[in-house]
Amino acid sequence: ASPNHPIRATLFPGDGIGPEIANSVKQVFNTAEVPIEWEEHYVGDKVDPRTESFLTWESLESVRRNGVGLKGPMATPIGKGHRSLNLTLRKELGLYANVRPCYSLEGYKTRYDDVNLVTIRENTEGEYSGLEHQVVRGVVESLKVITRQASLRVAEYAFHYAKAHGRQRVSAIHKANIMRKTDGLFLKCCREVAEKYPEINYEEVIIDNCCMMLVKNPALFDVLVMPNLYGDIISDLCAGLVGGLGLTPSCNIGEGGLALAEAVHGSAPDIAGKNLANPTALLLSAVMMLRHLKLHDKADQIHNAIIKTIAEGRYRTADLGGSSTTSEFTKAICDSL
Amino acid sequence: ASPNHPIRATLFPGDGIGPEIANSVKQVFNTAEVPIEWEEHYVGDKVDPRTESFLTWESLESVRRNGVGLKGPMATPIGKGHRSLNLTLRKELGLYANVRPCYSLEGYKTRYDDVNLVTIRENTEGEYSGLEHQVVRGVVESLKVITRQASLRVAEYAFHYAKAHGRQRVSAIHKANIMRKTDGLFLKCCREVAEKYPEINYEEVIIDNCCMMLVKNPALFDVLVMPNLYGDIISDLCAGLVGGLGLTPSCNIGEGGLALAEAVHGSAPDIAGKNLANPTALLLSAVMMLRHLKLHDKADQIHNAIIKTIAEGRYRTADLGGSSTTSEFTKAICDSL
Ligand SMILES: CC(C)[C@H](C(=O)O)[C@@H](O)C(=O)O
Ligand SMILES: CC(C)[C@H](C(=O)O)[C@@H](O)C(=O)O
Repeated sequence: ASPNHPIRATLFPGDGIGPEIANSVKQVFNTAEVPIEWEEHYVGDKVDPRTESFLTWESLESVRRNGVGLKGPMATPIGKGHRSLNLTLRKELGLYANVRPCYSLEGYKTRYDDVNLVTIRENTEGEYSGLEHQVVRGVVESLKVITRQASLRVAEYAFHYAKAHGRQRVSAIHKANIMRKTDGLFLKCCREVAEKYPEINYEEVIIDNCCMMLVKNPALFDVLVMPNLYGDIISDLCAGLVGGLGLTPSCNIGEGGLALAEAVHGSAPDIAGKNLANPTALLLSAVMMLRHLKLHDKADQIHNAIIKTIAEGRYRTADLGGSSTTSEFTKAICDSL
Repeated sequence: ASPNHPIRATLFPGDGIGPEIANSVKQVFNTAEVPIEWEEHYVGDKVDPRTESFLTWESLESVRRNGVGLKGPMATPIGKGHRSLNLTLRKELGLYANVRPCYSLEGYKTRYDDVNLVTIRENTEGEYSGLEHQVVRGVVESLKVITRQASLRVAEYAFHYAKAHGRQRVSAIHKANIMRKTDGLFLKCCREVAEKYPEINYEEVIIDNCCMMLVKNPALFDVLVMPNLYGDIISDLCAGLVGGLGLTPSCNIGEGGLALAEAVHGSAPDIAGKNLANPTALLLSAVMMLRHLKLHDKADQIHNAIIKTIAEGRYRTADLGGSSTTSEFTKAICDSL
């Protein structure tokens, strides 16, 4: 990649505050001269039969072709006959691992100042199978599906990630004392992979105990890998420890090395278009995308500029207790670059 | 009840540190002249075919007869051909609601000082159905079962509890955006019951968001009601906010108004028999049992003595950063009575 041969990446600005925070990313990337050319795609206004959702076929093709993308918040329109936007993306792009680094931000005080962990969530199966039925009136069942293939794949990714990022430990989170077969299979797969990484410590932690340990002493954890629903719960819990979803990045890893970075907070329609949104989660997600592309210098520069701007505290959006606009905060980051 | 006509209650001291902390309860109850006569039962040393577990039939009969009991920690022996002790108790005694008040203790500092909530967990079904099967090699499913009957029952209990305890709000915790039918049925039942309690505020909170809110600002919550697994997770998370399972009481409510109060921490075999265990969780659970029996004066006296002793901080067990023995701590409570 170079200014003359930029990397093409798909950008889903999304809804609500999405376009504003996506603009912030574009400005910061311009200032940092990141050699990326965005292919912008918006959620459609009617159901595309090829995706069974409001996502257009072209937008999915774009991510597949580019192998890399960035996504803002998307609110699934209410109604029947179409699939959730987030779930469609996961399914169609085979986004099997959701990776969320979670660390205390200098200068932004919460009750915790020692968080530095990464949650890695299986993103395709488990309690999200969508298989539910009524047995008799008043008795409903849903199926949790755990497969060896998906469990091995996410476990492989977790250990690979831990090694590549110089992390010491992987904790598999489970409830195999109750769900012996499903969570048992998940653990079996983690153990198999752990054998191949003797340099990484491996432990297993029951989810209820894990949540208690996380709120008492999150510094006990390093990399956590887990089935879908536990990942959904624990990744939000961890985000809460350091200030919430407005500050924490995420990246989805898909088949064939595809990466879709994503701000997982909502689209905040109440403040949309008012230049009030905090672009931090999307910016940090964009940094994860840069690392995936091995553009580590640019990633470091931008990451440091974001962290420094928040730490200095002169320019902060309202959600962080400041009174800066999205543009002022973005400009401060650009100035610091 | 009077000294001459005491109430009979079943006591399961349990394993490990169980007998020591149960002794502490007996001493405190004696000192407070609580009109209770204990029927003590221990876990058997062989499987009782009538319970399919190491629990004896007689011990279950004792709880059924007395309608009220107190339970210390029980470690399920490893091996096949028998059921988990805790799950057997829940099943056999129809313990449909697990109630855990969780409040910041004056004098015991954690990162939170404003917790005052109660989790009410459905205790019999959901992800704990035990129904799991392998579909083909490498594909395993487990069934989550939600019934109208059990959901209504626990929702009724939660609203009844809220009203009886002067609490303002009930939050139903769910993931019905994904498990539309199972968690959807749970919510439907909660809404039905909520209609009957117009004086209580009712809200629905998605579990991932709930965990984030709990770690950011637990004061937002009052009474939480939820399906089995979410209750397992969230009740431990909440215990973590105020110091852990060694400090938080619990009580199981069963069919016909039966109540089995229970310390939910482990049996801590490493410190068993060393006079080091902290009896607080079992003592506070015993207080819940007294309230269930409407012995509110005794309950208040003992509760205050426990809280005062912890707040004063002169006598504390090692887990709370002190160096007192179980007996010294217990004596301090008795002295303060
Ligand atoms: C919006 C919802 C379907 C989604 C999930 O449950 O996975 C969200 O909570 C997330 O974590 O991305
Ligand atoms: C020991 C275990 C089976 C139990 C549960 O999962 O219910 C425990 O965590 C609890 O909360 O009582």
